[in-house]
Amino acid sequence: MISKQIIKDLLLIRERKPLVHHIMNFVVMNDSANITLAMGASPIMAHAVEELEDLVAVADAIYINIGTLDSFWIDSMFHISKLVDKYNKPLLLDPVGAGATKLRTEVSKKLLERGNVSILKGNAGEMLSLAGLGEKVKGVDSLVEVGFEAVEILAKKYNVTAVATGKIDYISNGEKTASVEGGSYLFKYVTGTGCMLGSVTASFMAVNRDYFIAAIEGSALFKKAGEIAEKRSGPNPGLFKIELINAIYNFSDYDQSDLDQRIKIFK
Amino acid sequence: MISKQIIKDLLLIRERKPLVHHIMNFVVMNDSANITLAMGASPIMAHAVEELEDLVAVADAIYINIGTLDSFWIDSMFHISKLVDKYNKPLLLDPVGAGATKLRTEVSKKLLERGNVSILKGNAGEMLSLAGLGEKVKGVDSLVEVGFEAVEILAKKYNVTAVATGKIDYISNGEKTASVEGGSYLFKYVTGTGCMLGSVTASFMAVNRDYFIAAIEGSALFKKAGEIAEKRSGPNPGLFKIELINAIYNFSDYDQSDLDQRIKIFK
Amino acid sequence: MISKQIIKDLLLIRERKPLVHHIMNFVVMNDSANITLAMGASPIMAHAVEELEDLVAVADAIYINIGTLDSFWIDSMFHISKLVDKYNKPLLLDPVGAGATKLRTEVSKKLLERGNVSILKGNAGEMLSLAGLGEKVKGVDSLVEVGFEAVEILAKKYNVTAVATGKIDYISNGEKTASVEGGSYLFKYVTGTGCMLGSVTASFMAVNRDYFIAAIEGSALFKKAGEIAEKRSGPNPGLFKIELINAIYNFSDYDQSDLDQRIKIFK
Repeated sequence: MISKQIIKDLLLIRERKPLVHHIMNFVVMNDSANITLAMGASPIMAHAVEELEDLVAVADAIYINIGTLDSFWIDSMFHISKLVDKYNKPLLLDPVGAGATKLRTEVSKKLLERGNVSILKGNAGEMLSLAGLGEKVKGVDSLVEVGFEAVEILAKKYNVTAVATGKIDYISNGEKTASVEGGSYLFKYVTGTGCMLGSVTASFMAVNRDYFIAAIEGSALFKKAGEIAEKRSGPNPGLFKIELINAIYNFSDYDQSDLDQRIKIFK
Repeated sequence: MISKQIIKDLLLIRERKPLVHHIMNFVVMNDSANITLAMGASPIMAHAVEELEDLVAVADAIYINIGTLDSFWIDSMFHISKLVDKYNKPLLLDPVGAGATKLRTEVSKKLLERGNVSILKGNAGEMLSLAGLGEKVKGVDSLVEVGFEAVEILAKKYNVTAVATGKIDYISNGEKTASVEGGSYLFKYVTGTGCMLGSVTASFMAVNRDYFIAAIEGSALFKKAGEIAEKRSGPNPGLFKIELINAIYNFSDYDQSDLDQRIKIFK
Repeated sequence: MISKQIIKDLLLIRERKPLVHHIMNFVVMNDSANITLAMGASPIMAHAVEELEDLVAVADAIYINIGTLDSFWIDSMFHISKLVDKYNKPLLLDPVGAGATKLRTEVSKKLLERGNVSILKGNAGEMLSLAGLGEKVKGVDSLVEVGFEAVEILAKKYNVTAVATGKIDYISNGEKTASVEGGSYLFKYVTGTGCMLGSVTASFMAVNRDYFIAAIEGSALFKKAGEIAEKRSGPNPGLFKIELINAIYNFSDYDQSDLDQRIKIFK
């Protein structure tokens, strides 16, 4: 019963308050920090190469999000990637906009080729592009459902747990695959909901080193939280973001009986 | 009846989901992205010179906001300005703080002198300063009502549609002028409402190449949305920002009968 | 009766609308700007060394927050520190993460050693670390209560008013000490509440040059606003942040009879 595991790991996060180090884009920094706090974890947002080692040494998970990358921040991303090796920390990569620009595609691939990414999580369009399954991505919110193919290709190619998000999230670690259904149509009317899912999944990754399970936990919790938020906000995206944070903070209080039915795992 | 045009263009935005590329300040990036989504358009926030061409090539409108400029970001602004020429895209410039520092005044003027700005939108103090009508601007929220003179000067000098915002927004394309009344006193208690109006107007600019009309549409929609938001929030600026996003998302559902009476157009 | 002084100075802020110049971290820029507006002051967020002199010359208070420092922004911090000397402006420093990385500790100390900081405000862990009272800081939200010792050491060493925040805020100017009780448990579930307190205190500093009193005013107002916000939001950190801004905006309307009892001043 994965629902029991989700709540168990969520309570573990709240007990341990793991440090989740973010190299995060400018747009979503505040929301990702607040979502991480709502999970019960401790967010750090820092990018200066002079201090990354002090922080990675004590971090419980690292999350690189390339959403507003530039040459200065790309240096930080590769610097922290090397520190992930040195300190053997779990790393989640969100390749925001891969496929939309050569720079983003290349930076994503080079980070993946370093071989230390544990979870690669992008939207369907980004993952399709990285998997070499073509199609141009429009912006960073492509809704193309790529299904299992892209995540299996990427999981095997880069030895990661790959997550392609959309109406259905597809997850693979190369051996097993999973799908997670649910969520809210309002996710696409709030900027950075995918980035916030990254913070949620990185928080699970900090306490559960079975990254395939951590990825399923993140997707399932986030989709259900989105549904709770939508019920409370109605068709109001401003309020929806607020209720999403509230729902994650109070997640363990809700009836979890519908969590399992949205998750399918295939061996 | 401009009210009918506003709704028609708003529905067109929702159908086409145009890409609005932002070079946006750090303070308001998140809100501007969410406002753009609430309009039904697709925001992109990216500034790396290495990738701007890939994005401008597919963008439907470009919005440069100099709110937190520095030497690194100024390079991005001039780089994207050149790409606007190459790809013939509509460009909106928000000269945040022009008049408050020499740097901001000079960067704004140099961008304008490149001759490819379609809409120049600032608050009354900024526009007064750029128009050479003197007076120091206090911060970036000057409430000096400059009226029609500044926008006519700027429209003719730089061949733009000029918008000076305040209790009344003044708009000119050098041939016609317009004023738009309304809005909320709470606009000045939320940071970046002017920047958010830039995202709204850029969204209209992406589907309506009559920039004089696009500017009127942006001002009228934003002022009315502010009034709706204020009614719902009461004297609570935190809630007001949330309700402003909600009101824009739901704008086409409201009675539009009062939209026309706030707009005056003079030939 | 300090409660009367708080309301008097708050009304003075609303009358004068002082300019509070922020060198602020990326995560909290938006919230700090909105909190400053809710106080009735005018926030400026700008960091380009080319324009700082134009802004410092007219600013009423300067606030340096090192939350997302890097080499580029560190230059801005030292540049503005020199301008603080030249223009004799009050300076508040928030040494976010001091003790967590060598870079942050060193930058904080070097800024303090310039001798022009008026108020040094950090959380208990940061202040403990700067005071040489040891212990590693976990992230930037350490809840270790350091009490009066750290603030007295720092006040005397650097000739500042020192504020160590936590469930109780400890304040010292080297001659007098104070404690301020209250606040909300939700402060630690919203990112940057300490940074926002910095904006509140800097706003008081802009109208009251008795910095010991300005620091007490900031802590007392912020803690009470947190309590009001918590009552309205319930256990919902997303909503709590919104209500915190609302409560500060409406602060002068509330019953102030409980303000004095939370403040203790010792000579």
